Amino acid sequence: MLLSGVPAPVEQVILIMSANPSSLQTYGFDPADPIFRAHEGGKIEVAATKALRDRADLALLYTPGVADVSRAIAADPSLAARYTARGNTVAVITDGTAVLGLGDIGPLAALPVMEGKAVLFKHFAGVDAVPVCLETGTVAELVEAIVRLAPTYGGINLEDISAPRCFEIERQLRERLDIPVFHDDQHGTAIVVLAALINAARVVGKDLAALRVVVQGAGAAGVAVSKIMVRAGISDVVVCDSRGIISPKRTDLVEHKHRLAAITNPRGLSGPLGAALVDADVFVGVSGGKVAEKDIAGMASRAIIFAMANPDPEVHPLVAARHAEIIATGRSDFPNQINNVLAFPGLFRGAFDSGAAQITEAMKLAAARAIASLVAEPTAVEIVPSVFDQRVAPTVAAAVAALA
Amino acid sequence: MLLSGVPAPVEQVILIMSANPSSLQTYGFDPADPIFRAHEGGKIEVAATKALRDRADLALLYTPGVADVSRAIAADPSLAARYTARGNTVAVITDGTAVLGLGDIGPLAALPVMEGKAVLFKHFAGVDAVPVCLETGTVAELVEAIVRLAPTYGGINLEDISAPRCFEIERQLRERLDIPVFHDDQHGTAIVVLAALINAARVVGKDLAALRVVVQGAGAAGVAVSKIMVRAGISDVVVCDSRGIISPKRTDLVEHKHRLAAITNPRGLSGPLGAALVDADVFVGVSGGKVAEKDIAGMASRAIIFAMANPDPEVHPLVAARHAEIIATGRSDFPNQINNVLAFPGLFRGAFDSGAAQITEAMKLAAARAIASLVAEPTAVEIVPSVFDQRVAPTVAAAVAALA
Repeated sequence: MLLSGVPAPVEQVILIMSANPSSLQTYGFDPADPIFRAHEGGKIEVAATKALRDRADLALLYTPGVADVSRAIAADPSLAARYTARGNTVAVITDGTAVLGLGDIGPLAALPVMEGKAVLFKHFAGVDAVPVCLETGTVAELVEAIVRLAPTYGGINLEDISAPRCFEIERQLRERLDIPVFHDDQHGTAIVVLAALINAARVVGKDLAALRVVVQGAGAAGVAVSKIMVRAGISDVVVCDSRGIISPKRTDLVEHKHRLAAITNPRGLSGPLGAALVDADVFVGVSGGKVAEKDIAGMASRAIIFAMANPDPEVHPLVAARHAEIIATGRSDFPNQINNVLAFPGLFRGAFDSGAAQITEAMKLAAARAIASLVAEPTAVEIVPSVFDQRVAPTVAAAVAALA
Repeated sequence: MLLSGVPAPVEQVILIMSANPSSLQTYGFDPADPIFRAHEGGKIEVAATKALRDRADLALLYTPGVADVSRAIAADPSLAARYTARGNTVAVITDGTAVLGLGDIGPLAALPVMEGKAVLFKHFAGVDAVPVCLETGTVAELVEAIVRLAPTYGGINLEDISAPRCFEIERQLRERLDIPVFHDDQHGTAIVVLAALINAARVVGKDLAALRVVVQGAGAAGVAVSKIMVRAGISDVVVCDSRGIISPKRTDLVEHKHRLAAITNPRGLSGPLGAALVDADVFVGVSGGKVAEKDIAGMASRAIIFAMANPDPEVHPLVAARHAEIIATGRSDFPNQINNVLAFPGLFRGAFDSGAAQITEAMKLAAARAIASLVAEPTAVEIVPSVFDQRVAPTVAAAVAALA
């Protein structure tokens, strides 16, 4: 009875869930757990790319030879791109204030996530990524620290920094640095959500631009998802925070929500999330919170639900399946994984290959379309390519590089 | 005639020099030069230590699995040593203000040197080292930046930061951080110079503690070399800066030279470097400057000359050979290479293996003695082990760990 009316493909969800019955639960620390065993000693290392066999190698790679390379770069800084690893190296920078769905757990506890990201950067796009976990501080303090260490890197991937600080930190860094600065929780999420939505609209036979979209969450991801949808031509985007629908009438809005109110909610809705969801075609959860089943029950037919909170989606996929035709989450153990890994490796690969000084709005839209294009015949359980589809990173990289 | 009176082994110097006739000259930028070819694309990369084969691996190494590790570390920060790469990772941090003998060439031009150091850390001791090249600033600004990024690393190797800023930066970091902080230009140099001197004294048949030592240079290396010699029991150490012998009578001394004057120069000498060198047993050049042949001509018989400036020694080894029995430089293309690589990899290996919260003065002395002990029968051209002697790092590591 539970699944009456659910389209057939969603049975796959059940099978996968049965295989991992506890996958949505919180684990404690258990050294014998496969997760902890996989993390033993960490997940990354620094390796030499040049052989150090003898004294002659030492004289080439270190003193006295290296002095010539340093002198040459001092005379012509552009040579650093060719004669150091910098041009292929991105710093994955966090202060641990908004890690996954875990919140402010600090820089040390964020390190495993940053190492995981480094594994993905290398695996999918050959990008060398190094974690940089900063003690948190004011926006000005974090910007100063990052500007000071920026000469080391060819690009900066900001990660898991709490809103609204992340907006101002990214804005100031983009202004002050001449290398790509990309806040993945914002733009990586936005790119992949848009890619997924392009294909989901095809599956349910609705026009992308005509979709009524409700975004739950006005943090880093919510803001960026909303903006990229508007930029992609979707006119009816309504954003909700924990107090309900964001509109210019609200008197409690911080600055970034004010700006969001100005470009969304064209029908001037107000009230709780449930009010926004009435007849909505799309629910995008990027809040880390929950949505009640009665609220999604009010959505339009052939609804699309992206419940992206990690590790615990805003609505359980089995519950969502009662009311929506397409369900996606951020998790790797369900179909339709809306995972930033579809975007960030290829984005930095494209930026590095083309020497782009920044990642532009046009590049982000192009990346979303490139990802969507890789699913020739989308279905309810395949609206995005597999994260293991080896075409993804090169296709995104080419789309980005073409616009550099 | 040039080499009359020079002991036979020094002929090896000539042979090596003949093979590299231009090795002391300044190169321009030439992409076809073997040095530049060896640096193409940089010298290090970030590699995954865990296999990412499929969706199950992704769920273990990244979301959702990684959240459990982050939660566990948030609850118990000591778990970071076991479940991240942090416990084996040292940041090689510079602001590029005192790079090799090149001076203030900036953070970008310093990057090849830091990458070279990372290659050495890994090759000799299995330590993962990541370059961090900082825009320079005041002592307070650099300390703030480094404290902020410290959670990422298990140790900090300061490198090529100009004196006297380096002293205060190191002091403040040691006070504020609970991980090893080690300024290699000071202590790495000091350790290896002491190791070399222990064996050089044996070769010339003089008592270590009774040696008259002249140190040219009162920068980072000069200060640390002088201090470790005093700590090792050598009572007659005289330090010279560009204005001559450092003594309490001088009215032009900055603070760290005042402190140096208080523990050196027991005979109360004053005047130029040449005055200090009269009857001196040992000359240690760590100035990046030059010493005149007439000055070293005044040294005692069976003199020892360590001309350590990189890439250009204070006195050419062939000139030094006319007046000294033992000659050492910092270069890998001459015998007796006094290279920090004999010390820093094993030091951090020992600190990481033992979980030491800092590298103490006792550990530094123990490291010097451990290095010296590896040359069973020192000769004029073998006072230190080869940098490729695989016993060095483990022996230093064990000596350091024993004191943790």
